Amino acid sequence: MRIGIFGLGTVGQGLVEIMRQKNCGIEIAAVVDRSFAKKAQVLQGIPASADKDLILKDKSIDTVVELMGGIDDALYVVRSAIEEKKNVVTANKALLAEHGYSLFHLAERTQGGQILYEAAVAGAIPIIRNIETIFRNEQITRLMGIINGTTNYILTRMRKDNMGYGDVLEAAQKQGLAEADPTLDVGGYDAQQKLGLLISLVTGKWVEAKNIPVRGITELSSQDVIWAERFQNRIRLVADYKQENGQHYMHVTPALVDERNVLYDIEYENNAILFQGEYSGEHLFMGKGAGKFPTAFSVYSDLLYLKSGSAAAARKFAHTPLSTNYLSIGDISDTSSAFYLRLRVKDQPGVLAAIAQILGNNALSIASVHQDHSAVQAGEADIVIHTHSAKRNSFYRALQEIKNLKNFVLHQIYLPVLT
Amino acid sequence: MRIGIFGLGTVGQGLVEIMRQKNCGIEIAAVVDRSFAKKAQVLQGIPASADKDLILKDKSIDTVVELMGGIDDALYVVRSAIEEKKNVVTANKALLAEHGYSLFHLAERTQGGQILYEAAVAGAIPIIRNIETIFRNEQITRLMGIINGTTNYILTRMRKDNMGYGDVLEAAQKQGLAEADPTLDVGGYDAQQKLGLLISLVTGKWVEAKNIPVRGITELSSQDVIWAERFQNRIRLVADYKQENGQHYMHVTPALVDERNVLYDIEYENNAILFQGEYSGEHLFMGKGAGKFPTAFSVYSDLLYLKSGSAAAARKFAHTPLSTNYLSIGDISDTSSAFYLRLRVKDQPGVLAAIAQILGNNALSIASVHQDHSAVQAGEADIVIHTHSAKRNSFYRALQEIKNLKNFVLHQIYLPVLT
Repeated sequence: MRIGIFGLGTVGQGLVEIMRQKNCGIEIAAVVDRSFAKKAQVLQGIPASADKDLILKDKSIDTVVELMGGIDDALYVVRSAIEEKKNVVTANKALLAEHGYSLFHLAERTQGGQILYEAAVAGAIPIIRNIETIFRNEQITRLMGIINGTTNYILTRMRKDNMGYGDVLEAAQKQGLAEADPTLDVGGYDAQQKLGLLISLVTGKWVEAKNIPVRGITELSSQDVIWAERFQNRIRLVADYKQENGQHYMHVTPALVDERNVLYDIEYENNAILFQGEYSGEHLFMGKGAGKFPTAFSVYSDLLYLKSGSAAAARKFAHTPLSTNYLSIGDISDTSSAFYLRLRVKDQPGVLAAIAQILGNNALSIASVHQDHSAVQAGEADIVIHTHSAKRNSFYRALQEIKNLKNFVLHQIYLPVLT
Repeated sequence: MRIGIFGLGTVGQGLVEIMRQKNCGIEIAAVVDRSFAKKAQVLQGIPASADKDLILKDKSIDTVVELMGGIDDALYVVRSAIEEKKNVVTANKALLAEHGYSLFHLAERTQGGQILYEAAVAGAIPIIRNIETIFRNEQITRLMGIINGTTNYILTRMRKDNMGYGDVLEAAQKQGLAEADPTLDVGGYDAQQKLGLLISLVTGKWVEAKNIPVRGITELSSQDVIWAERFQNRIRLVADYKQENGQHYMHVTPALVDERNVLYDIEYENNAILFQGEYSGEHLFMGKGAGKFPTAFSVYSDLLYLKSGSAAAARKFAHTPLSTNYLSIGDISDTSSAFYLRLRVKDQPGVLAAIAQILGNNALSIASVHQDHSAVQAGEADIVIHTHSAKRNSFYRALQEIKNLKNFVLHQIYLPVLT
């Protein structure tokens, strides 16, 4: 087995180190990297170039590892490799979320190489392989995951170190745990892409990631983190899927997680995926969601899988997202949830009555109400309401009516409660 | 693919139900069960007998599923099947712990069938497959597991429902969560067998389970459960392995687990395995440790793995416990640990001084001391000591000296603290 690596960044270098140390019988035949000239120390004589053809035109290379990131160049590389009947191992979730449907079909049509992407979802956690092989014949009725390390790191530090969102983000950027432009992570889009790939595998139909409702963590404030703790809850950015009445519902959302839920304990940049199998029961997979070696290890594990021949054998049986069908995504607002609602209000008579009436009118039953003046300006108050489970639609309608109380309500934020 | 099932108990019936529902293209050709005549409703026409030859002599059956339990008959069945070049799928950890070395070698020598045993360790958690395939080239330097559901259920209920060991055991027996003779579980021997299989896989050398030091949960009292909680700890029966200075240390022991350790949250009959990979970092796998469908699902998953051809492909590359070498097990008492020590003493002057002096003489540094009279008879007291990490040998020596203070010390119990 001879491989060519595109992209010798952090993960690429990690892969080279692991392969050197493991002596696994897979040869790195060539590397393509724009700044290959500066990386002689890592390359140690491996042929390298900035020219993609060094790998793509080499017939002796059977597997391409794509670790360039980005979309356009990566798409060209993966497509060309498949057309040359090479296997592809990639960590590029953005590429697969946008072009996976056509790429998987191309691989199917040309009967060429396979596309493996363990490293694209949840770092070192072998969740792709486990769903594709062990659980391929199991019905997964619920899946909840913390699959973005950056946001989980931010939320953890906001709580533990009592810091504001902006300060933690800056610290995370300095440590290389957040990008200079953090939108993909903090906006929830990275988790959205990964959830799309996971549920494509789970259902065997292609999930168009951009159609998954998504909400990031940017609106959250320290106030919410503190309020969550008062009720033995923590805030997590959750990728949430459930199958109910034949419909497939999914979304990415910040949510309150109760201490009895195992996701409560997943801290910092760790990732975790919790799912419910029809026969096999509840499963949790936890591991490093990112990092040089954890991510490189998943790439390496895909390579060994190809080398052993197991990938080809398993693929015949797996329900991969190769179906010509797109999955129809149910409208999440038709489902039910309990909610946390924090309202910054003017501290004057009648406010709570007006809010309570709106909730009542929309059939929302209140589990608890707390009012607090400690963290707000004089003349203002925070009202925190926990509702019992109700149709999301009803809640959104009530929320809109509450927003319209512009004379009283200055600001509002809500979170679903994960169960 | 045609299979024959030995043993139509709870798990066997679960398997038949799953296979009927899944329509997976695997045919149940025959069932052998002592009381097959009473099970017509489950069999629904599947040929059945009490005579083992119905399956063993049927050349058209390529895979034998052994769910009889016990040793002697099961050994005959598995050995005969392998000699007939049939594959074997078994959930029988006791059989493998005792005869696995010779059975795996027999399979190797006859170049016949393979032996798969996912269901033998940690129920529905696919830990065998994950270690054998995904992590086969990863160095696992530490592994800690809760791999016996019965004891974890007992320890959970002792804490949550404030019950004594005997009462919970009785309740567990009524619910089918503990055997009439619970020795295998509560003595730690079941966990010992499973740990032997896991570490055989991890190291690629055969671990003779009976040589793994084991301590069960029978000496524990509600007092210890309560004391643990006062310090935000919980007691777990832990299967613990670590690689240190080229030595392989392992044991099964009840231990104090700190709330920061994820095993703290594994409750009731759940199982969990936490391990540290050299490159891939920390992983946790959690799932149902027992039960009709979770266990049957693991058997079913082995069958699909055989059917896909992946098992044969992977086996060529895996380091299975097929090496002719036995693993040399390091002496656990050479390693270090912090300890919890509870002493029931006569409440008289000089006792604490005598105990403290023994600890000091043995280079054991005290992290905290608490004395309490609330749960004991008049004239007695409980002294609870937490030590800093020290050589286990030193601790055991000190413990022996403390035991010799027969005039003061009525009873003692100790637990290592898991880190």
